[in-house]
Amino acid sequence: MVRPIGVIDSGVGGMTVAKELMRQLPKESIVYIGDTKRCPYGPRTEEEVRTFTWEMVEHLKKHDIKMLVIACNTATAFTLNELKRKLEIPVLGVIEPGARAAITFSENKRIGVIGTEGTVRSQAYPEALKSIDESIHVNSQACPPFVPLVERGVLEGPEAEEVVKTTLKPLKDKNGIDTLILGCTHYPLIRDVIQNEMGASINVISSGEETAREASLILSYNHLQEKGNLPPIYKFYTTGDFHKFKKIADEWFEGPLDTFEVIELDPVEIF
Amino acid sequence: MVRPIGVIDSGVGGMTVAKELMRQLPKESIVYIGDTKRCPYGPRTEEEVRTFTWEMVEHLKKHDIKMLVIACNTATAFTLNELKRKLEIPVLGVIEPGARAAITFSENKRIGVIGTEGTVRSQAYPEALKSIDESIHVNSQACPPFVPLVERGVLEGPEAEEVVKTTLKPLKDKNGIDTLILGCTHYPLIRDVIQNEMGASINVISSGEETAREASLILSYNHLQEKGNLPPIYKFYTTGDFHKFKKIADEWFEGPLDTFEVIELDPVEIF
Repeated sequence: MVRPIGVIDSGVGGMTVAKELMRQLPKESIVYIGDTKRCPYGPRTEEEVRTFTWEMVEHLKKHDIKMLVIACNTATAFTLNELKRKLEIPVLGVIEPGARAAITFSENKRIGVIGTEGTVRSQAYPEALKSIDESIHVNSQACPPFVPLVERGVLEGPEAEEVVKTTLKPLKDKNGIDTLILGCTHYPLIRDVIQNEMGASINVISSGEETAREASLILSYNHLQEKGNLPPIYKFYTTGDFHKFKKIADEWFEGPLDTFEVIELDPVEIF
Repeated sequence: MVRPIGVIDSGVGGMTVAKELMRQLPKESIVYIGDTKRCPYGPRTEEEVRTFTWEMVEHLKKHDIKMLVIACNTATAFTLNELKRKLEIPVLGVIEPGARAAITFSENKRIGVIGTEGTVRSQAYPEALKSIDESIHVNSQACPPFVPLVERGVLEGPEAEEVVKTTLKPLKDKNGIDTLILGCTHYPLIRDVIQNEMGASINVISSGEETAREASLILSYNHLQEKGNLPPIYKFYTTGDFHKFKKIADEWFEGPLDTFEVIELDPVEIF
């Protein structure tokens, strides 16, 4: 019996991680939940984010997942340690992979991080970076307009360019970073616009690629890789609007997905 | 008490991994053994490589290492699974990190691998690559002249260029790869020469960087990162000529190392 990798996000952003999982681990099946109805998570309280995340996790347990990827930076910041402790499967967030990749790429040890208010408030990136190397200088900035932009499907063009330009101005003014972490899985969907605005010399790190690579290692380390030759199965669920979710998925993924449905999550008491 | 990371190699090649460990994990201490006296391992039998590797491992046990990095592709090919099973600390080789990185970088799924005769004969890279993605096409080639060249300290100039050109000709003639794995930790020391010969469009993957990154993840995953603020300690041992080993280390590392000694390894009975 094939056990899938579970992927959760506040909305469509985690698709950037899912797409990389499909590319780097083409034998693995995936079950994805995007909590689009309650997106964005960025401005929410820690308790809300924990509750919503547990609701997705409880739902995924029915699919007998063998690994959980929290493909949402805000949820990673608030729930990773708790989920690691309480679940018996490997749990990966998107923050440490991005931090480790940034350390590999940065030469001047000045690293920028953009994310939601929740992620920036949590200080999760500076902590992850400095726990590895205290001499790293981190410039963080919250970019609240980006997630709503992406969820509306505005991924390029004058509106996207204008929003990105205005939002990133303070970070650009503080010059000196050579590496920028896209600390929100929605942002790779507007990566080209961000790269253009920041300039070609900046290494832009997308957690999707990095997280998929670490997922590959953790599967191998725990002897959990899929060995058979059955084609992988991709199941995608949203708690929100079917058509908006589907439109972005159709643009983002190359082939069709096996299941695409709206679900309701059962309420969970957090402790 | 600070527990170091143990790094072993047939000679100086593993220094490319050690240097990346120092850069990406600046809090971690390192104990390195280069078995220069019996280098190269490439043409040796599996039994010899297993015996020599166990001798280095037994020596490292006295240093209470918390993780072992087999920074030698030949030794990884022949001993990784055995060491993983028999040691109680995490054990990392250099083959899977290189394979995973190649999968991330390659767009046309045609990947070249160069290494010692032993590594190529073991088929470890094609197996690692195809276990993740069967559709990958692998072109392997043994490059026996490279290790002696590097151990003599010839890292650039006309002799290095000529040897690299002649040796890589068959691989270049089989065109089509977009990514080349340096499947021997000695090769990054002549990386620029190899990149020039292959052309700028080829992604050249050095296991050092990739292995250090995976070491970072595995330390974190096992809660083994160094948390304190003591400066790291770097101890380097060779079984061979002190001055040749020291000369390459002085060229390769930026600062001085704490210990630099010739040792004799005790014989070990393998089972």
